[in-house]
Amino acid sequence: MTPEDAMALAIAESERVRGATSPNPPVGCVILDEGGKAVGFGATRPIGGAHAEVMALHEAGTKARGGTAVVTLEPCAHYGRTPPCTEALKEAGIKHVVHAVSDPNPRAAGGAKVLTDAGITVESGVLEQEVSRGPLRAWLHYARTGRPHVTWKYAASLDGRVAASDGTSQWISSETSRREVHELRAKLDAIIVGSGTVKADDPALTARDAGGMPLARQPLPVVVGMSDLPRGAKLEHTALHLRTHDPDEVLAALAERGVVEVLLEGGPTLAGAFLRAGRVDRVLAYIAPALLGDGPAAVLGAGVSTITDAVRLTVEDVTMSGPDLRVSAVPRT
Amino acid sequence: MTPEDAMALAIAESERVRGATSPNPPVGCVILDEGGKAVGFGATRPIGGAHAEVMALHEAGTKARGGTAVVTLEPCAHYGRTPPCTEALKEAGIKHVVHAVSDPNPRAAGGAKVLTDAGITVESGVLEQEVSRGPLRAWLHYARTGRPHVTWKYAASLDGRVAASDGTSQWISSETSRREVHELRAKLDAIIVGSGTVKADDPALTARDAGGMPLARQPLPVVVGMSDLPRGAKLEHTALHLRTHDPDEVLAALAERGVVEVLLEGGPTLAGAFLRAGRVDRVLAYIAPALLGDGPAAVLGAGVSTITDAVRLTVEDVTMSGPDLRVSAVPRT
Repeated sequence: MTPEDAMALAIAESERVRGATSPNPPVGCVILDEGGKAVGFGATRPIGGAHAEVMALHEAGTKARGGTAVVTLEPCAHYGRTPPCTEALKEAGIKHVVHAVSDPNPRAAGGAKVLTDAGITVESGVLEQEVSRGPLRAWLHYARTGRPHVTWKYAASLDGRVAASDGTSQWISSETSRREVHELRAKLDAIIVGSGTVKADDPALTARDAGGMPLARQPLPVVVGMSDLPRGAKLEHTALHLRTHDPDEVLAALAERGVVEVLLEGGPTLAGAFLRAGRVDRVLAYIAPALLGDGPAAVLGAGVSTITDAVRLTVEDVTMSGPDLRVSAVPRT
Repeated sequence: MTPEDAMALAIAESERVRGATSPNPPVGCVILDEGGKAVGFGATRPIGGAHAEVMALHEAGTKARGGTAVVTLEPCAHYGRTPPCTEALKEAGIKHVVHAVSDPNPRAAGGAKVLTDAGITVESGVLEQEVSRGPLRAWLHYARTGRPHVTWKYAASLDGRVAASDGTSQWISSETSRREVHELRAKLDAIIVGSGTVKADDPALTARDAGGMPLARQPLPVVVGMSDLPRGAKLEHTALHLRTHDPDEVLAALAERGVVEVLLEGGPTLAGAFLRAGRVDRVLAYIAPALLGDGPAAVLGAGVSTITDAVRLTVEDVTMSGPDLRVSAVPRT
């Protein structure tokens, strides 16, 4: 098996644990034996548990000797909650390490050097983009900035309305798109809404399957705003309520709680505040092929008064989600 | 050459004359000799001129004898401004006719029967969808309904704004998208704007090339609205001014002038009136990857007050136009 093929399998491993490892990164690892056959698979365990390399080495056992470890992130060389992975790789007799992304965390970095010093060959950058834009995207952002990665998700009509003029909005987007959002919710740490959304829609912000049953992993629901939550609201006892309108205060409070990736779900005023502060790292728009011609817009008060101040984005990806368009875009840097 | 390959060439022929044949359809024709070799190409000449079949037979000359005529529309069997194409095909000794689309016009239809009666084999439906959704789309709509085909085109930000809150809008969409619109303008018969747009933007509504020079074909500029055009406006002496707000009155006036295909360019109120009346046959949205958060919307007053009344569309096609999304959608029937 080539290192690229093994890395694709390591990525798949890491995808299985997305949302379950914060504040640690969701890493995937595949061990190839001396002949290049995959003999061990592993992914990061929840906080305090083993790292991906250790899980994969455990499965490989003695077959790891003389083999290759293919891992989505540079193996760590420091003692944290668990011993360094570099030691485990050396002890198992691994001869080659292939990783996708170097560790940007100064405390954990240096793994490649430790390995090289022990006579292990190290190759970096294999499927680097797939990993850094995929499973490790949020964690890399968090490691570099100290802030959780924010995806602003909204569903609107083709003409940018999130509801009709009477306020009805169920359902602008298709069942396929709504199911996709529930799957996404289960893969990240927190969902943020404004207190206005709680008053208007009384959301539960849970991740549910097609039959309406809760998925195994549930994100932390977060409500942002000064006013108390309505009595009897679904989020009254489950949500973290942050009494501020400052996106940076919100993100600092979440980072303290080990939140790496958040989904900003609304409403328009809160989205405007995050955009104005430059705290939207990705826009995920579900655009329904419908026209409303009236009704509230997806974003309000983004701080743009003239066209040259528009928040310019780069489209990363456009796909169909059932009948809807799914647009993923990032702010232009 | 297979009939499909020849039809693809006939479609390309017809594309070259789009916008130059109204109220006649832009038809393309390829003549294959007895051995299946393409020996003649033709497309509809401007009104009063020869039809595609006659043009292609002229080029093929005696090589047409025993051959096949591949044509995007069923050959006409009636005396209009020119003699029937069925006669020309018979005289040229054509043995087989392959067409994509049957003629919906009762006055011109019956061509297939005339040909069959003369011992010519006739096959219909080859690349039918490519033709009926492509070069003959507007004309087929016109032939069936008596109304010009209306494409509503707009450019907006991802959040559905056509301008910033101070009214600036140059340029929301990219140069690539703007150039595409100019090429589109040259391929249809008329462009409609509201008198509000004339006051706000003073558009020329010409089709220009990348260097700003006018293209060979120019659509008829049409201004809809009660108020007089401002003195000195670029459209003051060039535009047809229709003093009505009723889309059906606008379309009837244009149909009388032989207009088959129009581009509705704005503004939001006029777009709302056409949508409300069910007179938008296709929506062409250029969506710029930018967020404005304030500013006017693409459509106003579409007659939708609650979500279940939304004008539902089906997305036909999504492509990138430079950095912009280009979405083509049709009302759901």
